Amino acid sequence: MKHIKAGSTYVIRLDRGEKVVETLTRFCEKRKVRSAFFQGIGTCRRAELGFFLMDKGRYKFRKVPGDQEITSLMGNVSLLGGKPFVHAHIVISGPDFLARGGHLKEAEVLATCEIVLTPLSRSLTRTYSRSTGLKPLDF
Amino acid sequence: MKHIKAGSTYVIRLDRGEKVVETLTRFCEKRKVRSAFFQGIGTCRRAELGFFLMDKGRYKFRKVPGDQEITSLMGNVSLLGGKPFVHAHIVISGPDFLARGGHLKEAEVLATCEIVLTPLSRSLTRTYSRSTGLKPLDF
Amino acid sequence: MKHIKAGSTYVIRLDRGEKVVETLTRFCEKRKVRSAFFQGIGTCRRAELGFFLMDKGRYKFRKVPGDQEITSLMGNVSLLGGKPFVHAHIVISGPDFLARGGHLKEAEVLATCEIVLTPLSRSLTRTYSRSTGLKPLDF
Repeated sequence: MKHIKAGSTYVIRLDRGEKVVETLTRFCEKRKVRSAFFQGIGTCRRAELGFFLMDKGRYKFRKVPGDQEITSLMGNVSLLGGKPFVHAHIVISGPDFLARGGHLKEAEVLATCEIVLTPLSRSLTRTYSRSTGLKPLDF
Repeated sequence: MKHIKAGSTYVIRLDRGEKVVETLTRFCEKRKVRSAFFQGIGTCRRAELGFFLMDKGRYKFRKVPGDQEITSLMGNVSLLGGKPFVHAHIVISGPDFLARGGHLKEAEVLATCEIVLTPLSRSLTRTYSRSTGLKPLDF
Repeated sequence: MKHIKAGSTYVIRLDRGEKVVETLTRFCEKRKVRSAFFQGIGTCRRAELGFFLMDKGRYKFRKVPGDQEITSLMGNVSLLGGKPFVHAHIVISGPDFLARGGHLKEAEVLATCEIVLTPLSRSLTRTYSRSTGLKPLDF
């Protein structure tokens, strides 16, 4: 993972084998990013997508096999329990060009992943709710 | 719907049962947002997608049944007839993780929807064209 | 193609028949945009999508027939060989509302395409690697 800072905006390049959510989270910890939004494109494999089951208060996960284009990576950074929390949704497409998507649990970068992350001037925080299984933004 | 303002950027949390387009539009009316762009992620149901039929000058709409992840919500705000107009496209994915998408007519927030909306320093306006059925940006 | 500048941000309207990548590239050349990120929505046809074959170091391309909503256009601008290079990924959806996606080789605007392009205050550059077939950002 490498990055440059342009004004307050970070351009981040994730490299082969790096995990998207884990690496972004570590980046935010290191740079003390407490709130941000981001977008990204790239390629990945071992993508694990989540679909939230409202009535069960938990995600159903599925690992998507094979290499995938990251056609859209979108999300935000906030603090959960005082630590940066990356909330990302992703759309991926394979060699059949069909798009799959969901909450991004994790994915491993294949060739590259190029993310533009814009920090916000005010902290965002979340709190986990045991009753719903959700971690809504505290507003 | 709740929001915070970070610099000139709004972070908006839509809550269960709120309609995405309607609530965003009302937010822009209230805050006098006349031009902006936004991105968002979340979950929804009762999504109604549109596909523009060029030769007929109108949308074909379809309601997508069931709960859906909002894997990408993207769009802009401009003035149409002097009032804020939200133009949004959406990609959603269900429990099979297949992605569907289109022009967003409306969707109802399920668990949460987190939108980052960045106002622009110049107004955008649109004008409806009866001949094409379109409402292009006036440039 | 028409645009307005709001602060440092460009709002670009591509019109019927214009090629997305080609027109954006020419725009960046003309305006001397050397690094930026963008998002866009619209409609297109003659979309040609790419899927990167890692082991072959090249893209597999497919032309998607028919009119399509551009449900998400996302990417960045950098310099490659001293010239603006547009790296875009796209998600499109047809009259069946199923989403397809990939690296965007090219697409022709159908009704309109509305792009928000935010220049960055530092140049981004890429270098082509003959061994991998990739053009990673130089960091």
